[in-house]
Formats: sequence, structure tokens, C-alpha cells
Amino acid sequence: MSALGTFDLDISLTADNDVVADDNRRRMERDGAKCVNIMSSPGSGKTTLLEATLRAFKGETKVAVMEGDMTTELDADRLRECGAPVAAITTGRSCHLESDQIARGLDQFEQDGSLSRFDLFVIENVGNLICPAAYDLGEHTRVVLVAVTEGDDKPLKYPIMFHGADCVVITKIDIAPYLKISLPKLEANIRTVNSTATVFSVSSESGEGMEAWLTYLRGQARAVPS
Amino acid sequence: MSALGTFDLDISLTADNDVVADDNRRRMERDGAKCVNIMSSPGSGKTTLLEATLRAFKGETKVAVMEGDMTTELDADRLRECGAPVAAITTGRSCHLESDQIARGLDQFEQDGSLSRFDLFVIENVGNLICPAAYDLGEHTRVVLVAVTEGDDKPLKYPIMFHGADCVVITKIDIAPYLKISLPKLEANIRTVNSTATVFSVSSESGEGMEAWLTYLRGQARAVPS
Repeated sequence: MSALGTFDLDISLTADNDVVADDNRRRMERDGAKCVNIMSSPGSGKTTLLEATLRAFKGETKVAVMEGDMTTELDADRLRECGAPVAAITTGRSCHLESDQIARGLDQFEQDGSLSRFDLFVIENVGNLICPAAYDLGEHTRVVLVAVTEGDDKPLKYPIMFHGADCVVITKIDIAPYLKISLPKLEANIRTVNSTATVFSVSSESGEGMEAWLTYLRGQARAVPS
Repeated sequence: MSALGTFDLDISLTADNDVVADDNRRRMERDGAKCVNIMSSPGSGKTTLLEATLRAFKGETKVAVMEGDMTTELDADRLRECGAPVAAITTGRSCHLESDQIARGLDQFEQDGSLSRFDLFVIENVGNLICPAAYDLGEHTRVVLVAVTEGDDKPLKYPIMFHGADCVVITKIDIAPYLKISLPKLEANIRTVNSTATVFSVSSESGEGMEAWLTYLRGQARAVPS
């Protein structure tokens, strides 16, 4: 999100971004693969959900991860330990990923062979519930996470992010009993800003709800012969 | 944080912002009051900490709140219920507060009388652990919250925000026993990026640690005759 508040400039910025995003999309889908862009606040559990997902997909769905962080490869290293190739993208002072950074991530994967060896590309965006929503990266599916620990009002307070989601994953539901949170209210608030998104409730720790999420995500990937 | 990535433009943007910020600071401190800018991820507990703080300060330290949110007055309404005057600032698509919005908030308070009736101005920034760090609003003290539910690595992953903090408040410590989190590791990670900040651990729910936080915050306000 630009600090400028000038509409014309915003338009031209995202127009440039969109051209590269469309190119990224074509590169990834050439052989039937798809791309999922995962976004949320810092600490909503994106990396933990991905760790559990990569472990479940091992030897089945071939995933390449592009991992966005302002700094450090802490998360990239965690995901590498799950056996997936990871392109670490550090954004420095920037608060979101842009499509040219994804293009360079794809270049990196191509150095080791054709992109067609992957069934699914997963982007873990920078932890930020606002700015990443404005940038198409070339994804086919937008997934937004919200942890029960963040309270039930976040969809109403950050409507642009939730409105643009194809899928919303409510995370950390194993902790819900210890919190003053109403899951039905959180779900209703998601529905207020987005009536069509697929909604899951999961705990990456206990495994509750994970099977439904994994089935959904398999459906976003290239069909793998069984 | 600008989407442009051009350093010169960033400089000129924040230079304009800084002039107004300095003016805000002069307006608020004219009669000895001070201003605290509270920042964190969405859902770290800024509003809940403020509710508990306003209730404790009632009849003692006179607080005016400027409440930043993209949309809705949900948080502003919660704080009004605690008896404090609240200027609600909705930022629309923008991911952070800027100093001219605080100037208009101060104008709003001045319509009802001199700013000298307040001992402390509190700004609750938009929930975002990145962009608000780049904008001086006229505050004297920067407070950054991080909830135990966000994991212990956030100071390392979002170093600019934590580096700029005068005070870091670790929140929701009542939930820590149910999480895989090491509080000493979180504190060590805060120290890695900021060796001088005052650090508190609190639970706004149970009240644990609140007295130390309130004592610190009283020290940031105009001295109230006892």
C-alpha cells in the first residue's frame, strides 16, 4: 500500500505489478500446476500450517515454496526441514511481496530444472493483514489465515484482505477454549465481508480440521495420478 | 511504507510527515502532557490493554485517545465505554497513521476546550507490525506490543518496529502455559534488536504485570498532583 495516497500513482504501480503477475501465472500453470498465496498477520500460523501441509504432501504432491520475510531465513529454514525446495525472498523495509520478486523466485527454481516438476507453488507472504492484499503475485488462489487468538473482529477491521480471499483458514482452534472468543461470531464476521470464500477451522498442533484443508489444497494443485 | 522502493521519494514523504509531527508534539507538550504511540500486529491486544489502562487511570490521569483503524469504530466505541474521549481516525485503504491525521484528531479535541485538560495522549495505531514504524506522529514514547500467541521469533522477523520501541509489552501471558513458547527466548530476541527498551510482561485479563505497566505509563504523562 503506497504511503502517497495519490490514486493515479497507486494505479500505475499495481498495473506494472499486474503485468509481471500475469507472466508468473502463465509460467506456473504451463503444465497444469497452480499457485496459492498465503497471507495473514504476523504470528497467525502460516509457517506452522505449511510445515504440517508439506509433511502430509511428502511423496505425493510436489510443492515449491516462495517464502517472503522482511529479514532472516528463519521460516525458510523451517520449511526446508520439511523437505520442500524453498526460495527465500527477503523484502528489507518493504511490507509485502511484489510480482517481480516471485518472478526471481521462479528463476531460482528453474536453475535446477523445469518448473513442470512441481504440482503446486505456495507463496508465504510477509506477515501483514493490509498491504499484501493490493498486490497480485500471479497466484490462482488467495488464502487468508486468522488465528482465534486475534479476536473475532478482524474480518470487519481488515475487510479488504478478507474480502479478496478465496479461502479463509481459522487457525489455533486448540487454544480457543482458553480465550474469550466466539468461533460462530468470527465465522459470521468472515461471511459479512465475504460470502463465497471456503472457510476451514484447523489446529496445526492437534491436527483437528487438517484433513479438510489438505483435501482443499490438493484440489488447488495439478491433479496427481493416484 | 511506500510501495515504490525509491529511497529519495521515501525521504521526501517522511520529511513532510515529520514537520507536522513536530508541530503535533509541540501542541501536546505545551502544558507538560506527553504522547504515547502504541503499535503492534492486529490482535496483539492493544485495545484490551488500553481498556484496562483507562479504567485504572479513571479519576487520576486524564487521557485522550486517538484511535486508528482502516474502517469501523469498533475499537473507538470500546474505549469510549471506559470514559475517555476518543477521536476515531479511519485510514481507509492505508496501512498506518500519518501525522496530519493526528493533527486533525487534536483539532477535534480542541473544539471542546484547551488541550491542556489532558495529561496524556495515547495513539492506538493501525494493526501492522511494519509500516507504522516509518511514521513519526508527534509521540514522545513508542510502545510496541507482542502477544505470546505470535511466537517468540517476531522481534527478529520485524526488527525495524522492535528496534524503534522505547517500551515493549509482552501481552496475553495468561495463555502462555497452553502454547509452545519460551518467554525467556522472546525476551532475548527483543534484546537482540533493542538493548535499551523497557520490557513488560502483562495479562490484561488476569491483571498480572499490569501495575508495573501502569506505573511506567504514569511516568510518561504529565505529573499529576497527588
